Amino acid sequence: MPEPIRIPADVARDAAVDILAAHGVPAAQAAQVAAALIAADLRGIDTHGLACLKDYVAALDEGRIKAQPKIAVTRRFPWAATVDADNGLGPLAASEGMRLAVEAAESFGIGAAAVIRSNHFGAAGVYAAMAAEKGCIGIVAANASAVAAPHGAATPLLGTNPLAVAVPAGNQPPLIIDMATSEGSRKKVRKALDEGRPIPAGWALGPDGRPTTDPAAALKGVMLPFGGAKGSALCLLVDVLAGVITGAEFGGRVLSVMTNQERESGNGHFMLAFKADAFIAEADFVRRMEEEIARLRALPAAAGFDAVAYPGERSAKKRADRLASGIPMSAALIDGLVALGGGRLLSGGRG
Amino acid sequence: MPEPIRIPADVARDAAVDILAAHGVPAAQAAQVAAALIAADLRGIDTHGLACLKDYVAALDEGRIKAQPKIAVTRRFPWAATVDADNGLGPLAASEGMRLAVEAAESFGIGAAAVIRSNHFGAAGVYAAMAAEKGCIGIVAANASAVAAPHGAATPLLGTNPLAVAVPAGNQPPLIIDMATSEGSRKKVRKALDEGRPIPAGWALGPDGRPTTDPAAALKGVMLPFGGAKGSALCLLVDVLAGVITGAEFGGRVLSVMTNQERESGNGHFMLAFKADAFIAEADFVRRMEEEIARLRALPAAAGFDAVAYPGERSAKKRADRLASGIPMSAALIDGLVALGGGRLLSGGRG
Repeated sequence: MPEPIRIPADVARDAAVDILAAHGVPAAQAAQVAAALIAADLRGIDTHGLACLKDYVAALDEGRIKAQPKIAVTRRFPWAATVDADNGLGPLAASEGMRLAVEAAESFGIGAAAVIRSNHFGAAGVYAAMAAEKGCIGIVAANASAVAAPHGAATPLLGTNPLAVAVPAGNQPPLIIDMATSEGSRKKVRKALDEGRPIPAGWALGPDGRPTTDPAAALKGVMLPFGGAKGSALCLLVDVLAGVITGAEFGGRVLSVMTNQERESGNGHFMLAFKADAFIAEADFVRRMEEEIARLRALPAAAGFDAVAYPGERSAKKRADRLASGIPMSAALIDGLVALGGGRLLSGGRG
Repeated sequence: MPEPIRIPADVARDAAVDILAAHGVPAAQAAQVAAALIAADLRGIDTHGLACLKDYVAALDEGRIKAQPKIAVTRRFPWAATVDADNGLGPLAASEGMRLAVEAAESFGIGAAAVIRSNHFGAAGVYAAMAAEKGCIGIVAANASAVAAPHGAATPLLGTNPLAVAVPAGNQPPLIIDMATSEGSRKKVRKALDEGRPIPAGWALGPDGRPTTDPAAALKGVMLPFGGAKGSALCLLVDVLAGVITGAEFGGRVLSVMTNQERESGNGHFMLAFKADAFIAEADFVRRMEEEIARLRALPAAAGFDAVAYPGERSAKKRADRLASGIPMSAALIDGLVALGGGRLLSGGRG
């Protein structure tokens, strides 16, 4: 495999803006989407950064996502916004949703946004982190097209259904939890098949509806939520929060932005932000979070671990590295982005 | 094993009130605690119902829990209450916390309570269900004494740390998720050892800090959160919500009510309640929840399952059965409760 090329974050972001603008997205909206995707790349979530632009642009070009949506916000309570994304780009609607939730939290101590008629939004943790940057605890739940069977079922109903939570942590990087509530992905199963490895127990059922570690059987069967019955309950809860309560599609009716043809994807996002000083003084909260992290990091490591890390710690290190040295991108990714309108990547890489 | 004896729910509840009153708890408070414990028994969570009274009474008698706490409520925002439980019984403080959260939700659409200086509170789902009974989505997180090592660590920092969510579901029983975020329990490991069975992968590390399925090695090692790194992140999140943000103990400093001697247990609970009609019309919400459940239940079952059930469905059936036919209790449990002051159980059983 050739070495990836390091692209400075600002060059990558500007290239993303160019690409989106070239496909009809107004400049201000393009900047918001690019910022969300770059935030994922910076944290090392390469599958949810600029790599998403290929599918986004295809959907824009084919009219399956609106390049110039009219986002509409309504409220039933001062702290709660419903954001109609008008079938625009997911990162745009999600950024707007969390912005509104944080804005409300700054006035009322708590704020929420229910985002409907949205699309794939990249990495959930990016929007939770937006809240933490403003001193709020941020929670994000989003539903997605059906890939996983609920516990006890043999066919899919639930999506990857990400759940993310970010908590500011004073002089430490924020705690950022960002997880798909379904286990593994068919992509990873295909990789295991190619490499002749079994998949971990709990990832999938075979075509006979029984648990399997055989990747070939898993590909003919169905993926599962993570963590057995408990993870399945959480995966369902994400669909309830992001789909049922918001007014978005739910219960297996969300479509993938890669395949939706006859109707909108219908993704829903649920965003919650609140201030810890609703409960304790801000200074106490900060001191206690720092202490929580210090106690966790001081634990002796288990076999196979160098040290005990908290969620968000490694991605913060990656972010610092990538801000300093650029975002590593494969030549294939760069070529693809250049073809979409990101020509400035060719001159901006540091090699 | 002899057949359990079925005790009518009202007899069991009155016996619990008698027991608590005999050990110094005022009548009104005893009724609240008894109601919470019976609610767990009715849902089939026998370990978190009247079976808890033995430890509670011991703690009351030894002064480790206050029989007549002065619960104090303060607010920094109208929707947010901090409840100082004054080291009283956990079910009392938790019931009061969720009552206040629901009360605020009825005025503002959302309400929360941070409960500090509390104790073991029984089943988290009981308090989440209190919210659902009032038409609110209820979320409960509680921390507990350290039993589980966070992902990558070799020693305990996190408790069973229950997380519960209840969502009203119209003409269906509410969705009730109620899970320990740590996997298994040492009690279950001891049972596996007695029965010569291995424990499931992912439950524990052995004394060498490596994953084990050998119950003997697990008992010398440490238990783990459920679901690998993702479950560990959630178990930590529960400690942050219930401990760090509330002002309670956290980070391994909560004590068990069975063993605390030198200081209070210091348990914290985080309670959130909100109305779906903050986002969509109540009637739409109800119709959509019913539809979500109908779609899930209509899925073909996996091998080994008769049908696909949603979280809360089985416990609702159990509740209906036990309300009609009584709560099954072992003779040993009944004898123990009679010895604590629950004499009316002897005449109330239906045999």
